[in-house]
Amino acid sequence: MYPSGIKKLIECLKNFPGIGEKSAERMAFALLNFDKEKQTNFIEAITEVRDKIKRCRICGNFCENDICDICLNDNREKNIIFVVEKPKDIYLFEKIGIFKGTYHVLDGLISPLDGINPDDINIASLVSRIDNGNVNEVILALKPSIEGETTMQYIKKILENKKVKVSKIATGIPLGTDMEYIDTLTLELALEERKNIS
Amino acid sequence: MYPSGIKKLIECLKNFPGIGEKSAERMAFALLNFDKEKQTNFIEAITEVRDKIKRCRICGNFCENDICDICLNDNREKNIIFVVEKPKDIYLFEKIGIFKGTYHVLDGLISPLDGINPDDINIASLVSRIDNGNVNEVILALKPSIEGETTMQYIKKILENKKVKVSKIATGIPLGTDMEYIDTLTLELALEERKNIS
Repeated sequence: MYPSGIKKLIECLKNFPGIGEKSAERMAFALLNFDKEKQTNFIEAITEVRDKIKRCRICGNFCENDICDICLNDNREKNIIFVVEKPKDIYLFEKIGIFKGTYHVLDGLISPLDGINPDDINIASLVSRIDNGNVNEVILALKPSIEGETTMQYIKKILENKKVKVSKIATGIPLGTDMEYIDTLTLELALEERKNIS
Repeated sequence: MYPSGIKKLIECLKNFPGIGEKSAERMAFALLNFDKEKQTNFIEAITEVRDKIKRCRICGNFCENDICDICLNDNREKNIIFVVEKPKDIYLFEKIGIFKGTYHVLDGLISPLDGINPDDINIASLVSRIDNGNVNEVILALKPSIEGETTMQYIKKILENKKVKVSKIATGIPLGTDMEYIDTLTLELALEERKNIS
């Protein structure tokens, strides 16, 4: 019923997470109303992403060269590795701007139920970075889910005999949230990990 | 901070209605995770839309030729014109599949406050279609807002002396909705336009 270009566009838009038929249609018609210049910019941006964006050979971050800006930067402390699940997490922490070390992207979390084993994510490359460099601290910043915790426990275990401090970022109540919206497991953890008021 | 391709992509995605910085970032990273083939399909679909989709010379519908499939279709009744605000509305009514006439897209609604006058939308072309063809019925299917009602009143008035029946689609309570979620104006209209139970 739709002209073929619109139909194709709707199908493409449905690839985005959380975008169903109706939202895809709404977006397609919005895109039809963009002026030609905006449409061209969009085409060029996707083309640039498709053709130029690679993964950093060291940490797995998105970058336009073999090695990303963070790994290339001499001011970043190469002895601290901050382990994240996906490249996007890097940008979340970079926005805060207080972390001066380097990153490592696992590209997934261990999840036996989904058939994702330690070999399927970038743990071996993390270990080899630690074996081959002067790394003395690994900070695990994976989400506090069963998969995240399993992955953190696994990494903690395989790094046990190496001279490296392994920590994970704190779980607890996020700031500015009303208690009633927090799940019970988080409340339990927040209670367990209570701190003395100094 | 982001590689330039990703930054450009986020900016493009922010052009969609309702997509802010965070949603655009989420979508950009989703797109980065598409395989090359899906990315290419997306580029091709936008290119096709940019280069091939035109507006029908008769009704203003989106189409790939000078005249849209509906206006070209000999089985459609050319004496009935269904007036809508935007091309997307055509597809909403086509999905129902019961309307067998033709359409006319106004591309907007009269809104003096926003500086949109009758001359700024496709009313003149509607009148000339009526003057030049065998049109005997015009159905107005504009949304029941101040702008929609103003536009319907205006069209009703300029068609007053022409031999054409002008109607508008019904307002009232949508099916399956709980009364408490309906605004008072709709409730008032629904009461005013009550029908005998036959």
